[in-house]
Amino acid sequence: MKKFTLPLAAAALVALPGLALADDPVPGVNPSTDSVFILNSLLFLIGGFLVFWMAAGFAMLEAGLVRAKNVTMQLTKNMALFSLAAIFYWLIGYNLMYPLDNWSIEGVLSGVWGPGVLEAVGVTAAEADAYDYAATGSDFFFQLMFCAATASIVSGTLAERIKLWPFLLFTIVLTSVIYPLQASWKWGGGFLDAMGFQDFAGSTVVHSVGGWAALTGAIILGPRIGKYKDGKTVPMPGSNLALATLGTFILWMGWFGFNGGSQLAMGSVGDVADISRIFSNTNAAAAGGAVAALVLTQVMFKKPDLTMILNGALAGLVSITAEPLAPSLGLATLIGMVGGVIVVFAVPFLDKLKIDDVVGAIPVHLIAGIFGTLIVPLSNGDATFGVQLYSIVVVGIFTVVTSGVMWLILKAVFGIRVSEEDEVNGLDMAELGMEAYPEFQAS
Amino acid sequence: MKKFTLPLAAAALVALPGLALADDPVPGVNPSTDSVFILNSLLFLIGGFLVFWMAAGFAMLEAGLVRAKNVTMQLTKNMALFSLAAIFYWLIGYNLMYPLDNWSIEGVLSGVWGPGVLEAVGVTAAEADAYDYAATGSDFFFQLMFCAATASIVSGTLAERIKLWPFLLFTIVLTSVIYPLQASWKWGGGFLDAMGFQDFAGSTVVHSVGGWAALTGAIILGPRIGKYKDGKTVPMPGSNLALATLGTFILWMGWFGFNGGSQLAMGSVGDVADISRIFSNTNAAAAGGAVAALVLTQVMFKKPDLTMILNGALAGLVSITAEPLAPSLGLATLIGMVGGVIVVFAVPFLDKLKIDDVVGAIPVHLIAGIFGTLIVPLSNGDATFGVQLYSIVVVGIFTVVTSGVMWLILKAVFGIRVSEEDEVNGLDMAELGMEAYPEFQAS
Amino acid sequence: MKKFTLPLAAAALVALPGLALADDPVPGVNPSTDSVFILNSLLFLIGGFLVFWMAAGFAMLEAGLVRAKNVTMQLTKNMALFSLAAIFYWLIGYNLMYPLDNWSIEGVLSGVWGPGVLEAVGVTAAEADAYDYAATGSDFFFQLMFCAATASIVSGTLAERIKLWPFLLFTIVLTSVIYPLQASWKWGGGFLDAMGFQDFAGSTVVHSVGGWAALTGAIILGPRIGKYKDGKTVPMPGSNLALATLGTFILWMGWFGFNGGSQLAMGSVGDVADISRIFSNTNAAAAGGAVAALVLTQVMFKKPDLTMILNGALAGLVSITAEPLAPSLGLATLIGMVGGVIVVFAVPFLDKLKIDDVVGAIPVHLIAGIFGTLIVPLSNGDATFGVQLYSIVVVGIFTVVTSGVMWLILKAVFGIRVSEEDEVNGLDMAELGMEAYPEFQAS
Repeated sequence: MKKFTLPLAAAALVALPGLALADDPVPGVNPSTDSVFILNSLLFLIGGFLVFWMAAGFAMLEAGLVRAKNVTMQLTKNMALFSLAAIFYWLIGYNLMYPLDNWSIEGVLSGVWGPGVLEAVGVTAAEADAYDYAATGSDFFFQLMFCAATASIVSGTLAERIKLWPFLLFTIVLTSVIYPLQASWKWGGGFLDAMGFQDFAGSTVVHSVGGWAALTGAIILGPRIGKYKDGKTVPMPGSNLALATLGTFILWMGWFGFNGGSQLAMGSVGDVADISRIFSNTNAAAAGGAVAALVLTQVMFKKPDLTMILNGALAGLVSITAEPLAPSLGLATLIGMVGGVIVVFAVPFLDKLKIDDVVGAIPVHLIAGIFGTLIVPLSNGDATFGVQLYSIVVVGIFTVVTSGVMWLILKAVFGIRVSEEDEVNGLDMAELGMEAYPEFQAS
Repeated sequence: MKKFTLPLAAAALVALPGLALADDPVPGVNPSTDSVFILNSLLFLIGGFLVFWMAAGFAMLEAGLVRAKNVTMQLTKNMALFSLAAIFYWLIGYNLMYPLDNWSIEGVLSGVWGPGVLEAVGVTAAEADAYDYAATGSDFFFQLMFCAATASIVSGTLAERIKLWPFLLFTIVLTSVIYPLQASWKWGGGFLDAMGFQDFAGSTVVHSVGGWAALTGAIILGPRIGKYKDGKTVPMPGSNLALATLGTFILWMGWFGFNGGSQLAMGSVGDVADISRIFSNTNAAAAGGAVAALVLTQVMFKKPDLTMILNGALAGLVSITAEPLAPSLGLATLIGMVGGVIVVFAVPFLDKLKIDDVVGAIPVHLIAGIFGTLIVPLSNGDATFGVQLYSIVVVGIFTVVTSGVMWLILKAVFGIRVSEEDEVNGLDMAELGMEAYPEFQAS
Repeated sequence: MKKFTLPLAAAALVALPGLALADDPVPGVNPSTDSVFILNSLLFLIGGFLVFWMAAGFAMLEAGLVRAKNVTMQLTKNMALFSLAAIFYWLIGYNLMYPLDNWSIEGVLSGVWGPGVLEAVGVTAAEADAYDYAATGSDFFFQLMFCAATASIVSGTLAERIKLWPFLLFTIVLTSVIYPLQASWKWGGGFLDAMGFQDFAGSTVVHSVGGWAALTGAIILGPRIGKYKDGKTVPMPGSNLALATLGTFILWMGWFGFNGGSQLAMGSVGDVADISRIFSNTNAAAAGGAVAALVLTQVMFKKPDLTMILNGALAGLVSITAEPLAPSLGLATLIGMVGGVIVVFAVPFLDKLKIDDVVGAIPVHLIAGIFGTLIVPLSNGDATFGVQLYSIVVVGIFTVVTSGVMWLILKAVFGIRVSEEDEVNGLDMAELGMEAYPEFQAS
């Protein structure tokens, strides 16, 4: 995901076979450098459509975990947030995230606030090689999906009570400014990257940012009516666990693209072997998270809890995302297991604090994201605990402050919460006039 | 998608590195030409499984938008139509679509009506290179999925009232003759291609053809009982919007293969960079369509309409399909937005005409398909408005006449509409004796 | 899927262009051998995520075919079994399946019972080439998914009455010992492979093994309460056919990876052309199976049966899995059709025997798997009917005995069946305290 550092290594690698074939009599055609460019781009395209698929995963997970009366709204939010992310990341975010050398405040404010531009149609190899190590379009496509994933995280936590348009306005700010700006600190070659911060595919840059924004929103928005009564947490079970399970499988599948694509290169033996490690480790961590939640809920509650198992798998995935390459399969499984344990304890803990997170996104993306980032030094010698912690805190403060300000502005200007009556009746009929399951009687 | 024109360019490109490595002492093994062949085939395989996935998308979209009493029938139709398309496109359609030089009526009638044949097992590079620029099997696989997609478009419009077997007989004729014959005019190197008609991935060749066949069928079949009453349109809401949303996400994902694979080559830097542009533009257009429908339904009806947003995204995708390569990201977004606007206006307009299109396939695939084809000259200098319009009309007349004749024959011979009683009771129990959701009480 | 035989051929192929570029002045960088390694690994990664996706397919198919009161349990089992398979195949199975030369009993018992280990991070081309023909991680990832698929087959048959934990304990034994041990006989270069047994992607090694384990379990477990009454079979319709259809489409899609990835190499023209044949044939067989079941249920019962059509497609897929490469498209379609016919006759036949297979997994995976394995000699000259039959019997006896012993031990120690009261009330509330669709009234 780091765009300007890795290419240097890749370019060096590319240069070697180029020398080897220097007697190539056809200028501009070089089978080996070309194939590196092609394979790198292909990785971004495959990774990109897999991460796109995660948008469907979030939509299904959240639609399955809200009550039937709010399903249409949750689907609408997910479809709309992804589409707005696509537009605003193009319009502002992409260039803001990669401000080239202009990494000062001056640089950020001068000329990088503009729409992303793709390279020309039918670009020649010579032009392309001079320009970058993979097609710009493939990189844009891949990076966009990460930005959209960050926004998807927020929608689940705030479900069943937030108004549609204020939520979408927040999404616009998140995807055009908040996400890209902090992402540039690491992946745009900014100061966290310079300090040695390690966050391979974004436990902090993506997941904790979505989690912080969700947490801030949940506190400002307040819990659903009736959720906390007489000191007790009232269960509000999801309407469709089949859908929630499908969403989890989709997210799990998409994560191979999320983590594997973040290797950023597939044109050498070492790169493809690393991607293979990442796929295996990512799967191991998800499995570990699911099994840990399964066993723990059996032991603690005497009954396995499917929603905990689903979130356990997701927390395992988030936990391995900061460093999916270096761990052994065994360590990856263990890291995932800790993620699963985190979920089982953090979900009731948030309820104790009366922070109402409808789908469990804060434990999964924020708390497991922090854990995953802190654990990197265990397997990656380039990381230090201090820098990891510092980066988590910096990104956290930035996201809490910016998104907090944004939520408060939205609250003051439009109000962010639906009326009590609308909340009780469900957002679908009240705000959209359309039920998701009009023929299935709600009991 | 044009099979016989592009390969020439690709072959030329392939020849160059071949020369460069002419001192290769192992006859028949050429790393660069081989890798072009491999990467081209891989593009077809990845593109093909993504377009296959669209069959699931259509099935879920349509199952979600029909009423509960017709869901099993809609699922049955989708599973059956895809399977029949696979068999009849192989048996007749594939060779009919690519009649080599025999592009006259004589050519079409002599010897091309036969099953598709794959190349031998373990074909050598020398044999393969002499033969084609990618594996025949990969091309067959990819092309088949386009043919099946055309058939999928029809099933949604005619849902809830058409008999199963007449519909399937129509599918057989559509996939073995109607689609391949007109597709050959452009992609088989026929007269529309010779005139300069530009339709990159098939806004006209695929989507409008499915749309015309659906429109013709809808008119001959007539609207559902009770749909238009006392000059008013009676809403018949879909039974499962979560399923419809899932279907839309699936179609969106599959479209990366639909448009990206239509580049037809991935073995050069220019090709992979173009594919990357296409992925990004395709995504931008879908996002534009969804956002346009979101905003427009908010403004017009004061309530965002999820089914319009879903169809808006799909219309954006159809609109960009005729030319997903040349536009900038901004233009692609705008083209998609117009697609979204088309849907919002065309859906009630069809209702005014008492043309009952259950899922909105005619606005999405036919009207947005025409728009997408007409707009090509804006970004692609090889296209002229006149030729685009002429081709739309030719393909339209051909499809309306052939499918109209077919629908009328089926109506005369078997009847195409279920009895009034069966329609009211639902096709599931009447025709199949099996409910999709037997335990969820219909209200 | 055969790991140690094919690489030799691949390695030979790789060596040739290496010679051709012997004047390469950069030691350790060889564009052609590197690209073979990269493309082979990429095939495993793409194939692997597609086969992973089958886990979601099994989950949706089974959740759709059980009654609403058992859906949460079925989802829990599928999520848990995949996760446990991932852990135990890593911990024991992978090395057990590929015991290198130690193919004797001594070999198996000495040192191969240990966790799988990936190659080092950033392995160099020289190290990697010396070691294997594709990244170990990619092979592990791919093989793991096959092991998990075997376990998924079992869960559907035994649904609605088996206890969670005994089922999961069985899964652990199946994925750590039973599956890998017998798989090594063919794919680990064991005695069945030495005899000339042909099973390209596992009609016997995967599907029949899952089927035998399911059959053994179904007999020991007994039918659901009320399923067979007064000599008649009582229909217990699935709760959600949309979900079951989605599951079938997912499995169909995943099968391209299952069969295509089993070519095990994509680095040459011949390999990619073969993969293309396999994709096309796999699709043809699925289509044939669906159409055969559609026509046959229409003819026999006067009403097409969607669940038969779904299982027909799956039986077509299983039937072609033993040899998806050699047949022509026409033969592949026919083989699939026979699979579809098998399902329509085998489902009621099992009911006559009072073997209660909730989702039809025994007809699909066991009976069609046997058929597919026996039919290989028709298209593949290396196979003989005698060896195919012998291998089916050996694998069958081994699986029936080992899984039978395991089921009986579990029955004796824990009991494998829920109480009558819990079964009648549904496993979801009784064992998990959580409904899948809490708001949709069961009729």
